[in-house]
Amino acid sequence: MCQTENTPSSSTPNKQDMVEVGQVNGTNGRPAAASANQQRNPYAPRYADFLSNVCNFKIIESTLREGEQFANAFFDRPTKIAIAKALDAFGVEYIELTSPAASEQSRLDCEAICKLGLKAKILTHIRCHMDDARIAVETGVDGVDVVIGTSSFLREFSHGKDMAYITKTAIEVINFVKSKGIEVRFSSEDSFRSDLVDLLSIYQTVDKIGVNRVGIADTVGCANPRQVYDLVRTLRGVVSCDIEIHLHNDTGMAIANAYTALEAGATHIDTSVLGIGERVGITPLGGLVACLYAANPEYVKSKYNLPMLREIENLVAEAVEVSVPFMNPITGYCAFTHKAGIHAKAILNNPSTYEILKPEDFGLTRYVSIGHRLTGWNAVKSRVEQLQLVLTDDQIKDATAKIKELADVRTQSMEDVDTVLRVYHSGIVSGELEVGDSHQFDKLLKKHRDSSLPRPELTNGANTNGTATPTRA
Amino acid sequence: MCQTENTPSSSTPNKQDMVEVGQVNGTNGRPAAASANQQRNPYAPRYADFLSNVCNFKIIESTLREGEQFANAFFDRPTKIAIAKALDAFGVEYIELTSPAASEQSRLDCEAICKLGLKAKILTHIRCHMDDARIAVETGVDGVDVVIGTSSFLREFSHGKDMAYITKTAIEVINFVKSKGIEVRFSSEDSFRSDLVDLLSIYQTVDKIGVNRVGIADTVGCANPRQVYDLVRTLRGVVSCDIEIHLHNDTGMAIANAYTALEAGATHIDTSVLGIGERVGITPLGGLVACLYAANPEYVKSKYNLPMLREIENLVAEAVEVSVPFMNPITGYCAFTHKAGIHAKAILNNPSTYEILKPEDFGLTRYVSIGHRLTGWNAVKSRVEQLQLVLTDDQIKDATAKIKELADVRTQSMEDVDTVLRVYHSGIVSGELEVGDSHQFDKLLKKHRDSSLPRPELTNGANTNGTATPTRA
Repeated sequence: MCQTENTPSSSTPNKQDMVEVGQVNGTNGRPAAASANQQRNPYAPRYADFLSNVCNFKIIESTLREGEQFANAFFDRPTKIAIAKALDAFGVEYIELTSPAASEQSRLDCEAICKLGLKAKILTHIRCHMDDARIAVETGVDGVDVVIGTSSFLREFSHGKDMAYITKTAIEVINFVKSKGIEVRFSSEDSFRSDLVDLLSIYQTVDKIGVNRVGIADTVGCANPRQVYDLVRTLRGVVSCDIEIHLHNDTGMAIANAYTALEAGATHIDTSVLGIGERVGITPLGGLVACLYAANPEYVKSKYNLPMLREIENLVAEAVEVSVPFMNPITGYCAFTHKAGIHAKAILNNPSTYEILKPEDFGLTRYVSIGHRLTGWNAVKSRVEQLQLVLTDDQIKDATAKIKELADVRTQSMEDVDTVLRVYHSGIVSGELEVGDSHQFDKLLKKHRDSSLPRPELTNGANTNGTATPTRA
Repeated sequence: MCQTENTPSSSTPNKQDMVEVGQVNGTNGRPAAASANQQRNPYAPRYADFLSNVCNFKIIESTLREGEQFANAFFDRPTKIAIAKALDAFGVEYIELTSPAASEQSRLDCEAICKLGLKAKILTHIRCHMDDARIAVETGVDGVDVVIGTSSFLREFSHGKDMAYITKTAIEVINFVKSKGIEVRFSSEDSFRSDLVDLLSIYQTVDKIGVNRVGIADTVGCANPRQVYDLVRTLRGVVSCDIEIHLHNDTGMAIANAYTALEAGATHIDTSVLGIGERVGITPLGGLVACLYAANPEYVKSKYNLPMLREIENLVAEAVEVSVPFMNPITGYCAFTHKAGIHAKAILNNPSTYEILKPEDFGLTRYVSIGHRLTGWNAVKSRVEQLQLVLTDDQIKDATAKIKELADVRTQSMEDVDTVLRVYHSGIVSGELEVGDSHQFDKLLKKHRDSSLPRPELTNGANTNGTATPTRA
């Protein structure tokens, strides 16, 4: 269902806030029906677009194939099995494995994973060659992903074959795999630098002989969203089978390109955990989930076990010895940390103001950072209330100015901020301090710090309600 | 100039390879003229699009404003100055600083950076409020970026002002800043959740009173490329001033959205180094450079000192205590590492096969990784030649099978691979080894490893020509 839920219940949507959503049949790669009087999610598909599969797609998770091409990757069998099981539990529809023709261990591992009885379909990825196909079909996979370079670059500098040869081999391999009763996909490589007529011609040919999917690949990772839209849209008009897309991330556009491919009618997206793969890799699973969740939270929540995302990313990060990037969508360690004063104020009033992704849907927590010079008095007020201190707005503004002054020298931890607020409060209560008397406050703070008394205990709930300093995961 | 250069000189482009590029005037935010018979760069702007500014844009670098809102950021003055100087040397057109109203130190630092005499214009970013404007114009900045939340979310939960009040204040602030003879930009906040008519109305009003730029902001970071294109394109038809765009990266689409905004007629893109900012930040400088370079390498090389990119990223990463993400475009530590056998073969024949970004343009080096089970004999052959060993293709294929077998157990370092090749070679030369005699090879390798003799010295150039294992930066 293309339901949305980001609009706060306290706000009544006006006419502008209503969106038109296509009333379509919900089957065969088309968006599901939605209620006519839907509340506004501005990031949802906005028009009745019968092509768009933003609300109806499958993930082909390629951490165990593309990901193995990442410079640091060496997956032994227990690691491969752990990753496959985690991806299956997360809910990806397909898991793609390295070609069994790559090495003997690759073949044995492929067989072992096929025997796990996972819910996800198991695919393996081979060159368009009968030798590889014969090995692949014997492993027990549910499908075979066949690939060959079709661009003039790859035809000249890689395999040296012409289009007639490529077509002939493709037909032979596809018919062979189909004869074994399993799925088969045919993909070009470097599709965006291939001759369009050659491409459409071979896709049409393999579609006619009953291939399950055709694949487009931005192998060098430089396509932009418009180019992706154009090619997928054109292909959608040529073939009736499913369309898969594989997008490298060399210019950082692989997530947006995947989203755009779905808008243009693609049905299957290749991902890897953290995007690992050749060079800087491909569309990351987490990033794809983030943008599709933003468009349609309910659909994405219904398909995938979102709180597992962080665990899967940590598993793979550890296996390939990298850190989860600090700016990773959803799981980056400050993805839900709010700092600027005006942001913090609004977030405390209503998280939807600055958050489309709900941290709780991913098993994560929101933080509001206040011990810095960009802080605002509304965020400080929230902390004052958590500490059960009683201060007027003018007093809180005065204390905020003091926090900013101290934070101009060095960042203040939450403990530092609490100390400032407690000292300020006790100064006011005892009558030793008046609003604006910065000199007196400095004296009181020094006296407090010089004293050897233990800090007063927090009365209650001081680290709840999302106001705390972020901790690194 | 919209020249391209990625087509290898050895390949003659066919008719399909020719692209039509708009013959336009090259001034005032429009693409520059290009030769009619241009070689094909498939990632270049493909149509005569008079709107697109992919070949004509300016960067507003906001590491010292948006970046200061990153959870880890605390920039003291020497750090701010070092970052500002580095960005200026890189060639960004604008440097944006934290509001001088945020704290006393922020104000003093802003004044100090204005006095550096940088080539880049210095901007500061303030709330749409006369108090802030009065402080800002006294700092010596070249321009003031004014922002106010216009979405129903922010109007309700942040500042609580209506559109009439916002418009009145905007006019007052803009006229005041203009009266001081400096640039002024007016931006909405959370533009994609704002009422379109409200937005266009206020932009038209401020355009008429002579604002230099209007700004669009995806403050929550969830817009998709089509939404960005639509809003910028619509706005382009309403105002005659420049258009700036500020894109958060919560769903990982900020680079593609920036590219798309330029296609739709935006003129200025906000970036920060590594994308640092609130939550997961905004469009990263390096990623933006990567996608614009892919579209038009000559133009981007003419504007920016690209080999400085890594240095700037390291500077900022150190200042905010994060690592450069492993999958960062261009500077990620394996961005130019090739691993799969078929990739390695083609890269060795012609780097354009799998690379649109030329590492040498960024002062970086290409690596081909060969000590793993996905390796191919063409990559191994290249290494054999570097080591000045003489082996037939059949012998190299046999040695490659041995490397794959060993790499199935654990990843082989370049030193391991070299040992295999040397032992194999000496076995062949001495007659002790024949092709396919795996058992004998294992004996020779064990004998070599057991011997206490030092390894033979490399004869020459063994670590040149780009074949080496990657090292972490």
